[in-house]
Amino acid sequence: MKIVRPTFLVDENICRANIRRMADRAARQKLQFRPHFKTHQSATIGEWFRQAGVQSITVSSVQMAAYFASHGWEDITIAFPVNVLEIEEINRLAQQIKLNLLVENTSALSLLKKELTGEVGLYIEIDTGYFRSGIEINRVNQADELLALLKGSPQLQFRGFLSHTGQTYSARSADEISVRHADALLKLRSLKAYYQAEWPNLEISLGDTPACSVCEQFDGVDEIRPGNFVFYDLMQQQLGVCSPEDIAVSVACPVVSRHLSRNEVVIYGGAVHLSKEFILRPEGKRTFGRVAVRTNGRLELLSEETYVSALSQEHGIIRAAFADVNRLQVGSVVEIIPVHSCLTADLAGCYYTTSGEKIEKMAKS
Amino acid sequence: MKIVRPTFLVDENICRANIRRMADRAARQKLQFRPHFKTHQSATIGEWFRQAGVQSITVSSVQMAAYFASHGWEDITIAFPVNVLEIEEINRLAQQIKLNLLVENTSALSLLKKELTGEVGLYIEIDTGYFRSGIEINRVNQADELLALLKGSPQLQFRGFLSHTGQTYSARSADEISVRHADALLKLRSLKAYYQAEWPNLEISLGDTPACSVCEQFDGVDEIRPGNFVFYDLMQQQLGVCSPEDIAVSVACPVVSRHLSRNEVVIYGGAVHLSKEFILRPEGKRTFGRVAVRTNGRLELLSEETYVSALSQEHGIIRAAFADVNRLQVGSVVEIIPVHSCLTADLAGCYYTTSGEKIEKMAKS
Repeated sequence: MKIVRPTFLVDENICRANIRRMADRAARQKLQFRPHFKTHQSATIGEWFRQAGVQSITVSSVQMAAYFASHGWEDITIAFPVNVLEIEEINRLAQQIKLNLLVENTSALSLLKKELTGEVGLYIEIDTGYFRSGIEINRVNQADELLALLKGSPQLQFRGFLSHTGQTYSARSADEISVRHADALLKLRSLKAYYQAEWPNLEISLGDTPACSVCEQFDGVDEIRPGNFVFYDLMQQQLGVCSPEDIAVSVACPVVSRHLSRNEVVIYGGAVHLSKEFILRPEGKRTFGRVAVRTNGRLELLSEETYVSALSQEHGIIRAAFADVNRLQVGSVVEIIPVHSCLTADLAGCYYTTSGEKIEKMAKS
Repeated sequence: MKIVRPTFLVDENICRANIRRMADRAARQKLQFRPHFKTHQSATIGEWFRQAGVQSITVSSVQMAAYFASHGWEDITIAFPVNVLEIEEINRLAQQIKLNLLVENTSALSLLKKELTGEVGLYIEIDTGYFRSGIEINRVNQADELLALLKGSPQLQFRGFLSHTGQTYSARSADEISVRHADALLKLRSLKAYYQAEWPNLEISLGDTPACSVCEQFDGVDEIRPGNFVFYDLMQQQLGVCSPEDIAVSVACPVVSRHLSRNEVVIYGGAVHLSKEFILRPEGKRTFGRVAVRTNGRLELLSEETYVSALSQEHGIIRAAFADVNRLQVGSVVEIIPVHSCLTADLAGCYYTTSGEKIEKMAKS
């Protein structure tokens, strides 16, 4: 394959190793492994998971559930507060597969209860301190209200409590991830204890990529749902969650111009290829990606001082260390390691393996 | 049309009025109007331009040129430093349409000269102070080198100097836009004067949306290429370039949860629908969009204090003013006015008019 324009590349070996490592961790800790497929959104990469023994998955939208159901996945949790406006598709899916939904407020649950025609599993979302969605852990009465509502319905099977410990993403070290994870764990265990008499089979589902990658303590947890680990990215590396060698993806971008008077190189690769997600460098400047060069199939990261410093729609600006400038020639291709692989992958129409095979993914609607 | 998931909406009346107003401004000032189609990337909206008399267009990639060529556009400038790796497609297009390319360095021009089989128009990109791509205005000798190189080639027809005055985007007021535009204009006029003896037909092409929307002085300019004005957005409004009523687009998003204890509402609509582009509010907090509600077809902006304060992949968090909270009920649909419409539009698979007709756009590759 000749790369001539921005191209999202997946190193299949690294990606499969990331999948295997996480599947092994889950097995070792006797946790149900229900990986989140929102990061890759790809039927092809889904098969790599299947080959690692995965049978149940997590997605973030009804459309994504429909896409993976059409590719043979029969046990899917939509880990997003149920959007009852999509009831038609939800009812279709409930006929077709084992579908789990997420609720966290009585308005949505009442609407769902009224319009649902098939049987679904139901998780109640709990917020242990991320403050995005879910019932705040200290407002258990809201969970009681939901449980009272769903009790009457033969179509709504209560499965347990689900939480996303997104607060680990703003930790500053692996130690801090462990502290935040342990805090969430304690809260969810006490919730489980509180409800277990009445609901002896209730499950606890949690597991963000940072905690699942670095923490060893999951007592009381039944299921984990990490997603990003399949690719990893600079954000995870900065958190101390993965090493640069674990990052399975890059965006290959042609070099179109060099401005040596300001140590800058212009690539064809902008916000519509990389996303505007950034992290801060030690001196406080924004970076939208690190820069690497592939020689004979081997990827070599350039210096930390060579990085994507600005993006417009299709232009990327690399601020280059003096030693790297000559490796970035007009007409050559460099690879950008993304800051947040979920958003970068979402922007691509499809991916390619580093050996040039096309990887299908879900289309934008 | 029933909106059940994040949906990019275009108000056709506002959009056509924006097109007409800019076409009229260009006509009044006797400027060739070559609108940039990167904002909408849509054959349907292209037809609205055609109906306003537009025949020549600007795009930002070879693929976009191919897409619009396949929809009957026969005079296209690719306003991006030529990426010679795409020479095959460039050669195909050069056979098919009147194609203009952009160069700003001898490496790319040498490669192009060697491999080009058809005839193309050529602009030299000039940087008047944006520092992204282009020859810096005080390094005219580099333009001489390019002109010397292209002189020998019958396939390379020199058209003139093209510049993107992107520095107007970081202005703080309409007055500052005018100052920056006037500065760029002076520089380009002196360049034109310098080269006019040898190249009597050379053109000056410039024109970003801010300057084209608010400035009246274009003496010496032959062509303008604004793009964003077709939709406008919060960024342009914050710059003083358009009023809220001129913004033609929004992303309709279902409300899935309310957290009244922290004045927050959760929508189905995240970074993959809106993009992570933000602007700063007066108190320094980031906003990813304003919030509006449509009643009987009429869009009503909610308070300035009600705004999208955080985004993850599919979740959006609205921080809501007390007076607005009750208008944001679970199961209803709100509309988010985007910060940067180019990036938000790019994320959509297609658009819909506010009356429910589908608008085709270019697919992601």
